[in-house]
Parts: sequence; structure tokens; C-alpha cells
Amino acid sequence: MQQKDFIYGRAPIIDHMRGGGSFEQILLQKGIDRETADTVKALAREKRIPVNIAPIHKLNRVTRKNHQGVIGFTSWVEYVDVDAVIQGCFERAKTPLVLILDRITDVRNMGAIARSAEVLGADLIILPTRESAMINADAVKTSAGGIMHIPLSRSANLEGAVRHLQSSGISVYAADHKSEKLVSDLAFEGPCAIIMGSEGEGVEPRLIKAANETFSIPQVGRTESLNVSVASGIVLYEVLRQRKQSS
Amino acid sequence: MQQKDFIYGRAPIIDHMRGGGSFEQILLQKGIDRETADTVKALAREKRIPVNIAPIHKLNRVTRKNHQGVIGFTSWVEYVDVDAVIQGCFERAKTPLVLILDRITDVRNMGAIARSAEVLGADLIILPTRESAMINADAVKTSAGGIMHIPLSRSANLEGAVRHLQSSGISVYAADHKSEKLVSDLAFEGPCAIIMGSEGEGVEPRLIKAANETFSIPQVGRTESLNVSVASGIVLYEVLRQRKQSS
Repeated sequence: MQQKDFIYGRAPIIDHMRGGGSFEQILLQKGIDRETADTVKALAREKRIPVNIAPIHKLNRVTRKNHQGVIGFTSWVEYVDVDAVIQGCFERAKTPLVLILDRITDVRNMGAIARSAEVLGADLIILPTRESAMINADAVKTSAGGIMHIPLSRSANLEGAVRHLQSSGISVYAADHKSEKLVSDLAFEGPCAIIMGSEGEGVEPRLIKAANETFSIPQVGRTESLNVSVASGIVLYEVLRQRKQSS
Repeated sequence: MQQKDFIYGRAPIIDHMRGGGSFEQILLQKGIDRETADTVKALAREKRIPVNIAPIHKLNRVTRKNHQGVIGFTSWVEYVDVDAVIQGCFERAKTPLVLILDRITDVRNMGAIARSAEVLGADLIILPTRESAMINADAVKTSAGGIMHIPLSRSANLEGAVRHLQSSGISVYAADHKSEKLVSDLAFEGPCAIIMGSEGEGVEPRLIKAANETFSIPQVGRTESLNVSVASGIVLYEVLRQRKQSS
């Protein structure tokens, strides 16, 4: 498992994107000339690549070579189009199962969830372009390679993504430890998407509101809660269990 | 969360055990005098404390002080007696749920499983005295403190522990990815124990044979399998789901 980690320089990065290439993330030097900034940002927005503005010393820490104020981290994975994946499911008569990860910033949790999602038959993971763990070598390793085998998509607006899924006939269920409905009370036989939230804060209230229903996982112990990667595994298992039963 | 990590010296360690104290693990110098070795080993066996024989340089790496060939790592947790826990369950009319962890050597997995076990209502975790992750500060941290709130027990002979549980009216189910029974096909309403095995090798064949039944978790992906901490969470969830449904 080897891979060039980043490329740098204005022309190489702009050309890479114009040629159809993507990045995991772009680091843009604070105070760089307006033209470069605008071009890079516009291309990045179009391709849903997160752009982080950072002082020069942060870029220098990545490389001492002449980066000209722009460094692009290459992706370990190819990000795909949500509609294409959903369409593909319907075409092969597979009931779609989508996982939406709202601000999972821990790389190991991200890897662990991707591993479970792949093993338990999710069709797609949607990540926000902001506040999400970078899919790097550690994430790939923690996922036991699973992250390379499950389609990933990025969205600059998860709420919009939820509404879009709903308009495509997909019911969206959000994890919420305050929900009185247990995950086993919901019916996952139809096309559905599950939103799991960050360890600290859970799913964002806006997304909880946008969801069709919320659910909690039964918990009886004294300590706070399940780890988000275990919780994700449990929900995906519950979906699979119900679907196997009804098939 | 602070704690003295170890104590050293023949008399302090022997006195500690004679006075009813325990250790997470004892490091005994190779070639130490017979009398010390015999005394330490006999006391350790009685208290199910793992004793590792190691060359002097390994002990010197722990402390440069005059350890006299014996170092005892203090426990973060108190190990309990299986019968007392099971008895306690029956007395409070709680259906026992025991988790047996066969050779989980990764400290983070151990912590993560303990966290889930506590949250999902397991009453006891049984660990082998050999080939099991040390319950250290990292395990406690990964468990989000959960490991301090769930009774742990150690057994020098897991097969014997399984038979003993069975003779106490507890059915024992072993995870086995080759099993044709899915975890949801089993009935967990009664008193039961679940055996989960090491990531690399799964549950030992002897234990699989000793179990009442085996089960697998439905998996549909291309990558090998679920992480053992996610798999443990799923099985414990399934038990809880069935018991809530039947209650």
C-alpha cells in the first residue's frame, strides 16, 4: 500500500483538477494572490474538495519544496456521485442502504465504520466536505481495506443531501440517544439512509429535524454511550437482520 | 485517573498477595532462586495472576531500582469470582449475560469491548489468564471508563469455565464465522454466555466444541470480516433486543 501523498504548485494542482482529477483536501496559503485563490476555490467547489486556508508555515511543514502556496493531498479513494450509486442499486434490484456520517473526525472511527459498512452491505457513505476525518493511510488501515471497496461521496451540505435522498424515495433515519424509538422499532426493509453523528455532539439538530425518523440504541449500563463505530455496526446489522428476515 | 503502576521486591509482593491483594500480572526473573519462584507462583496460581518469566534486562526496563527479580503490576480492576456474580444475578432476578473473550490481545479492542459490554448490560466478562490484553491505562481509556464498571474474572482454563457455566444452567454460544446459524436464529432469552475469539484465529476449536451452539453474524461485503469489538457489540445488542422483546 504505497501512494504519493500530495502534489504542489499552482499549475500542477489547477491542471490536475481541470483534467478531471480530484484531491482529498487542498491546503491554500493565507494571503495568496487573488487569481490563484479564486481559480483553486472555484474548481474545488465544483468537485467538492475541502479547501483549508493556512499560514505559510503550515504548508512548509508539509514540504520545503516550492509549493507556491498550494498543496493538494491526493485521495486514497475516488469520490462518487450519489445519484449514480442509487441508480445503480435500483438497476440491480438492490434496496439502497446509505450511511451518512455527520462530523466523524477521528480517523480510526472513520476507518472502523467504513469496514463495518462494507462488510454489512451498505452501498454508499456520504461525508461532509467540512469537519470530517481525512481518508488517509491510517483510515485505510483501520478499515482493513474496506474503505477502498465501498463508494464514498462528499457533500458540502448534508441537509441538502438528506432532502435529495428523500426526493429519490429513500427514508432517512437519524441516531439520537434521546429518541424514544429503538432502532429495532423502525422498519428498514425499504430504501433507507442512516445518519450517525460525532462522538461528542451526535447528529446535528438540523439533520435530526430533516430526517424522517430518529432512533436510539437500547443501553442499560452506567457509562455514557457506545462508541460511534460500534453503534454504526449495530444499526447496519439491524438493517441487514430485518432485510434477511423479510426476504 | 492516576495510579501506582507496579510494586517490586520479594517481600512486598509476597506480602501483598498473602494479605489478600492481587496483581494484573507478575514479572519473574529467569533463574531466580527456587524458593522465591515457588512461593510467588503458588500464590499467583491461587489468585489466577499470570506470571511471566523474563530475563533480567526486561525487569530492568520496568525499573532500575532493586526489584530482586520480582515486579508485580497493580490491577486497574478487581477480578471477581464467577459464581458470586452469577449468584448475584439470580438473586436480583436478572437473567445472566456473560461475555467470554478468548485471546483478545489488542488493548484497544479489549477496552472497546468492555465499553460496549457495560453499556449493553453484560454482567461479567471472563478472560483467560494467558494471551489476553493487559488491563492497563490504555484499556481503561478506550473503554471510556466502562471497564471499571463491569465485573471481570480470570480463568486459567476457559474450557473448564465454559463447562462450569453450563453446569450452573447457563447456555454458552460461540462466535464462528463458519456457522450456518445466524446470531438472530438463536434464542438468548435465557441465561447465556457468548464466546468471542481473537481477530486472527477466532474462538479456539476446543471452546467451539464445548459450546452449546455456534453462530455467525451476517456479512455480505468483500472484505474479510468485522472488527471483533464491532462484532461483540452486535451480539450483545442482539441479546438485548431479544430480551426486551420478550419482556
